Amino acid sequence: MFKLDPRIEKDSIFIKDLPLCQIRLQNDSRYPWLVLLPSRNDLTEVYELTEEDQELLIKESSLVSKALALTTNCKKVNVANLGNVVSQLHWHVVARFEQDLTWPGPIWGIGTSVPWGDQKRAEFIDSFIRNLAELLNSD
Amino acid sequence: MFKLDPRIEKDSIFIKDLPLCQIRLQNDSRYPWLVLLPSRNDLTEVYELTEEDQELLIKESSLVSKALALTTNCKKVNVANLGNVVSQLHWHVVARFEQDLTWPGPIWGIGTSVPWGDQKRAEFIDSFIRNLAELLNSD
Repeated sequence: MFKLDPRIEKDSIFIKDLPLCQIRLQNDSRYPWLVLLPSRNDLTEVYELTEEDQELLIKESSLVSKALALTTNCKKVNVANLGNVVSQLHWHVVARFEQDLTWPGPIWGIGTSVPWGDQKRAEFIDSFIRNLAELLNSD
Repeated sequence: MFKLDPRIEKDSIFIKDLPLCQIRLQNDSRYPWLVLLPSRNDLTEVYELTEEDQELLIKESSLVSKALALTTNCKKVNVANLGNVVSQLHWHVVARFEQDLTWPGPIWGIGTSVPWGDQKRAEFIDSFIRNLAELLNSD
């Protein structure tokens, strides 16, 4: 069974499972910030995934990035595997804007999370899921 | 012909071409920091690459990450496409250590680059190229 790191579980909200990755929304309304978790246990580095899983990861990362860009109309999507604090393999997909808090710097390790309000979070997730479904249907 | 962004060209040193990406060494000895440049013009986002090129990117990123980990014996490899400052599509592969300058935070946008000395740079590149060649031969 796939085990989720307790810190990731606490800091983010489940959105949807793809063939390889669980998509979660980081509970930080300062950025539209998704986290993809390959459903494989005990891995830290991307290169520890099988070749087949690596191909799934880049495919799912691109799909999610595109849906996030459609949802937010952002300037740039940032994608990254850092994993310096939480070692469970996870992949950030973050929408960036020229007017956001830390542009053009990275988002990690700056200030304190601002949790999403219920309604804004629901609206964001609805819109993201709709865009994702449209991309999957047009694939 | 593949065009390199002038800022990337100035800040980094050519190491080697792979089928998709040019591998360059960021001229900043504070971190063992490689940059992969897919040899496609006018792209910014990973999802703008063809599916075939995306698969090459993750394959080459993993190969380079593994060779970098072997070369440096690092704690974690960080991989990322940010591109908030330089829009040409590029992919960071960085060896991280618990005792480095910004651990466990990200490396971007902190302080000022410290250029490599000639001998240390040559030693690092030699060792990295040897590890990369061994991985390619054992593939």
